[in-house]
Amino acid sequence: MLTLNRLDRADAQLLVSGASARAAEIGVPMCIAVTDESGNLLAFERMDGGKVTSITVAQDKAFTAAAARKATHEYNQACVPGNLVFGIHTALGGRLSVVGGGLPVLVDGEVVGGIGLSSGTPQQDMDCAQAGIDHFLSQRK
Amino acid sequence: MLTLNRLDRADAQLLVSGASARAAEIGVPMCIAVTDESGNLLAFERMDGGKVTSITVAQDKAFTAAAARKATHEYNQACVPGNLVFGIHTALGGRLSVVGGGLPVLVDGEVVGGIGLSSGTPQQDMDCAQAGIDHFLSQRK
Amino acid sequence: MLTLNRLDRADAQLLVSGASARAAEIGVPMCIAVTDESGNLLAFERMDGGKVTSITVAQDKAFTAAAARKATHEYNQACVPGNLVFGIHTALGGRLSVVGGGLPVLVDGEVVGGIGLSSGTPQQDMDCAQAGIDHFLSQRK
Amino acid sequence: MLTLNRLDRADAQLLVSGASARAAEIGVPMCIAVTDESGNLLAFERMDGGKVTSITVAQDKAFTAAAARKATHEYNQACVPGNLVFGIHTALGGRLSVVGGGLPVLVDGEVVGGIGLSSGTPQQDMDCAQAGIDHFLSQRK
Repeated sequence: MLTLNRLDRADAQLLVSGASARAAEIGVPMCIAVTDESGNLLAFERMDGGKVTSITVAQDKAFTAAAARKATHEYNQACVPGNLVFGIHTALGGRLSVVGGGLPVLVDGEVVGGIGLSSGTPQQDMDCAQAGIDHFLSQRK
Repeated sequence: MLTLNRLDRADAQLLVSGASARAAEIGVPMCIAVTDESGNLLAFERMDGGKVTSITVAQDKAFTAAAARKATHEYNQACVPGNLVFGIHTALGGRLSVVGGGLPVLVDGEVVGGIGLSSGTPQQDMDCAQAGIDHFLSQRK
Repeated sequence: MLTLNRLDRADAQLLVSGASARAAEIGVPMCIAVTDESGNLLAFERMDGGKVTSITVAQDKAFTAAAARKATHEYNQACVPGNLVFGIHTALGGRLSVVGGGLPVLVDGEVVGGIGLSSGTPQQDMDCAQAGIDHFLSQRK
Repeated sequence: MLTLNRLDRADAQLLVSGASARAAEIGVPMCIAVTDESGNLLAFERMDGGKVTSITVAQDKAFTAAAARKATHEYNQACVPGNLVFGIHTALGGRLSVVGGGLPVLVDGEVVGGIGLSSGTPQQDMDCAQAGIDHFLSQRK
């Protein structure tokens, strides 16, 4: 039997609030998704003005980051024609996202969830995803 | 009427055990899938620590290798923009995998199944897939 | 943070071998799937003669039993026209299975995985799924 | 290793021509699909006037009959609310068809393929599917 740790509801809310605070700060309304360590959705929030397409993209980024235990922008760097990783972006019906903005959430070196942001540039999405993690790590009990 | 050969359950187990032994040796927990010659799943194993996204990717690699009778890394080499093969990675809803790690299983020059590995680098996945085939060919009755 | 327990690879193998032994005993080759507590595949085996359609059905039964923490035959009983549960069988693109043969795997009252069998009658599938659980509970370390 | 038999191209054409001759006789233009023993498409014909929806339905019937080794009308009889089989009609994204008109093709007691008809009443579809099989069995070399 394996024993593992997983974000709870309060953890997920910390991630969302940290990310949404940063998104408000930079003036970009976002879709924010948080999943558990298996990639299943724990919390989701569309800020006023967040894009409809981003509802799915944010979830896919969070899913990928948690379930593959890798930031989506790292997949992006490897997923170039001629690299053997190329094509991973169409796996799982395209649900495996290689667009920047999905980060695994680690506690004590273990992936306990994932966060995905979408609606800004990938750089803005990544920045806000990281802000969510920073807030979570500093505030969690 | 056509007469054809297909991996049986014992063959599939040999492929899985050869691949998982190699994965353990290199210290990378993997998802391992074996299909019949038509690409339908025969056996699957997720080693402790194998990635959730790899559950599907391993199966899709094995499916592609068997059903298209071609190693997925060979598709990868051809699937570059400007080459007429490009775009094949989105076929079948993305189920046709061009990510390295899927190999057809041949006996006497005939494709009798496929094996797909996922969770490591494509090179590691390919290495373990080949180990599965080597073990199968040396041990089968 | 939540802490939870999950079947490991050795547990999954016990479930598969208990179920396949029973299937062999009653002379019905089966597809056997075992998932973790989130419904993600851990192990799969198609016995020689298991049906191709059962590859997916067995996995969906195991997924449903684990992820919804309910035996699929219990959903079946409630999923009749006029009952407010009716229609649940089309949820998740039909992946939520209400066909008998999927059982949650419990240890100390906690769902740690799921097992799904397919290729026989639902009653045979349920019988073999239970045999897998019995074998697992009696043999696990 | 398993050795199995599968319809070849000439066999598939016999099945289609027998079915289409009967469809012409009763004045109902049909969609006719023939698959191999794993449910993968071998031949398809839409007669002038065959329905667009039937393109998929005929293929799903043939797939189901071959891959599950059971006539679709037999699934239909068992797939009633309260029966433990109920819900099987939504499996595989609805691709598992329980609508009458799909028959497995057997030679010497072994399923070697499937035939599915669609566009008429289920009874007409079943009648034409059987005519395809009768023609195949009487004409094959």
